[in-house]
Amino acid sequence: MKVGGKRYKTVWARGGRGVFMINQNLLPFEFEIKKCGNHSQTVAAIKDMSVRGAGAIGAAAGFALAQAFLEAPQKSGKAFWEYASRAKREIEASRPTAQNLFYATRRVYAAAKKAKTVVEAKKTAVREAQAVADEDAATSRAIGVHGEPLIKNKRSKRGVTRVGTHCNAGWLAFVDWGTALAPVYAARRKGKRVFVFVDETGPRGQGARLTAWELRNERVPHVIIPDAAGAFFTSKGEIDLMMVGADRIAANGDAANKIGTLQRAIACAAYGVPFYVAAPTATFDLRCPNGERIPVEERSEDEVLFRSGPDEKGVMRRVLVANPGSKARNPSFDVTPAKLIAGIITEHGVIKRPNAAKIKAFFAKHCPERLR
Amino acid sequence: MKVGGKRYKTVWARGGRGVFMINQNLLPFEFEIKKCGNHSQTVAAIKDMSVRGAGAIGAAAGFALAQAFLEAPQKSGKAFWEYASRAKREIEASRPTAQNLFYATRRVYAAAKKAKTVVEAKKTAVREAQAVADEDAATSRAIGVHGEPLIKNKRSKRGVTRVGTHCNAGWLAFVDWGTALAPVYAARRKGKRVFVFVDETGPRGQGARLTAWELRNERVPHVIIPDAAGAFFTSKGEIDLMMVGADRIAANGDAANKIGTLQRAIACAAYGVPFYVAAPTATFDLRCPNGERIPVEERSEDEVLFRSGPDEKGVMRRVLVANPGSKARNPSFDVTPAKLIAGIITEHGVIKRPNAAKIKAFFAKHCPERLR
Repeated sequence: MKVGGKRYKTVWARGGRGVFMINQNLLPFEFEIKKCGNHSQTVAAIKDMSVRGAGAIGAAAGFALAQAFLEAPQKSGKAFWEYASRAKREIEASRPTAQNLFYATRRVYAAAKKAKTVVEAKKTAVREAQAVADEDAATSRAIGVHGEPLIKNKRSKRGVTRVGTHCNAGWLAFVDWGTALAPVYAARRKGKRVFVFVDETGPRGQGARLTAWELRNERVPHVIIPDAAGAFFTSKGEIDLMMVGADRIAANGDAANKIGTLQRAIACAAYGVPFYVAAPTATFDLRCPNGERIPVEERSEDEVLFRSGPDEKGVMRRVLVANPGSKARNPSFDVTPAKLIAGIITEHGVIKRPNAAKIKAFFAKHCPERLR
Repeated sequence: MKVGGKRYKTVWARGGRGVFMINQNLLPFEFEIKKCGNHSQTVAAIKDMSVRGAGAIGAAAGFALAQAFLEAPQKSGKAFWEYASRAKREIEASRPTAQNLFYATRRVYAAAKKAKTVVEAKKTAVREAQAVADEDAATSRAIGVHGEPLIKNKRSKRGVTRVGTHCNAGWLAFVDWGTALAPVYAARRKGKRVFVFVDETGPRGQGARLTAWELRNERVPHVIIPDAAGAFFTSKGEIDLMMVGADRIAANGDAANKIGTLQRAIACAAYGVPFYVAAPTATFDLRCPNGERIPVEERSEDEVLFRSGPDEKGVMRRVLVANPGSKARNPSFDVTPAKLIAGIITEHGVIKRPNAAKIKAFFAKHCPERLR
């Protein structure tokens, strides 16, 4: 996607040894490309959240392991594989809750393992890491293609479809395109008129910071709204449909996503506004029968009690925004029941009005290996 | 209510000439009593929002007019009444959207007008202003008495009733007690166990700042939650009932209140949690047939794009919390339809499952003059 008119991906490799990424810790206030010259630097970048989001973390992890293969000593096969497997464990420990990270490291390692020589293993690792990243971008792009027809310009009288979104499920969370925003970007490329209502997404503000940044750089008209205002705009008929991402989808279609998604879905149901979830099939956890089985972690209360950003001189400051001494709770996500979801947009198509039977049939057709 | 163990009202007069108030601009970070030695200073305090909230503004306005009567030159009746009526207009221009302000100035002025002498007019004005303030506190207290039985300790297994609230409808908005929090304070005084979930209430954070400050000073256990987390806690059965205030209630029971109230009410309906509105009968606008007729003003987008608070050194800072260049929308309140409201708690009792007929009957019984 575009930044200042130039095309970028969130993370990419050049010549194997160099891994580059948009430093997301500085967004939206500063745009910096971070260069990681070896696997340890890439691991550090994953740890400090310079790179974030399921797909982007996976790609960075794959690239990091490829870097490790290139760095590994060639003097003996034993030393070579010891170095590579130590690096793999190191990478996997950097963000142990990120599923895509394990997917990438296992895949790159297994591919290299099949090589007959150490030199061939290096080449294979580099190639496989690139394939992981490319497939992530392709998956997002396919989600855009399948979701784009849902943006019907006839929905609104003025010919503009007004899409609501929560948090950041845009390209910054993946290698390119994103999930919830992929249909928006695809629609724009087809010349459709789209306007996006961006939930601020407190307490960390990923909507106000990252989604708004993406949209502005892609020149998509948008406006940031406080989390408290979602139902208001929905009740006034100002939002035609909602599209959000997902962290994990249960076998019955219940979808876990950033805190605040649930109340947007409930408000959409109350006013008859279609609510879509966009996610790759990899996000489905078919062993999880329903949303009640998804545990919700709570994050530090400091995220609620404080806010950070640049002051009028551009100096980053952290300010207290609550009564001193009062406590806060900070659940990281909530679960939207499948019955509130109009459809789940995946890279293989849309699962309309999802339920356990439809999801099983969809996987049987498109990814039968996932049902084994 | 208590601050640091000592009893306070939000605004009070001493000896007529001195008006004192808690400087709400500094809360919750600093507790300061502001002294206004003449009516102009009190007007300035109303303008700069040192005093805020319907009831508190009304009381301050009444006290300001009493100050003006005391200041007025006694040399001629003409000069005296000219001074007083100029002061009245000045006070009324300080916050022209505050209904309670006009109620107080008209009442104090009319009472003084009935006096036979200038000296008597001064005394009457002082007495009437005090009556306005005392009645506000008594009304809030009565709301507490009528709402308190709704806090049933049997609701929760652990014997603690968990009340959700949005924004600040506590004593800081009135002279004492408040509306939505009055039943909580009344229940505590009866020895009931109450725990309050305080919505942060973005973008200005009146929940996190003012409600949390009130509750902490009254030693009511509470926790601040992000606006995005309301439906989550409701869905998990962690909230037994909700109580909120209102800015304006239509003749059919539709209630306008701080932005974000509507989505809390919708979530309560979805999970069967009773949702109460607490407000004095003065908040009803019986000429307004329903909520659709209540216009919603939008405030400055800067409230959404920036946040303010003290940094780690206690210096007040304003920081940018959104993508530079993106726009925001900031509706100030939303309207909760009567059908989502379990009851409206007033100083004369609770109007259960409100609708136009029940509200009319209630006013016919308790305030027939309002129906004329």
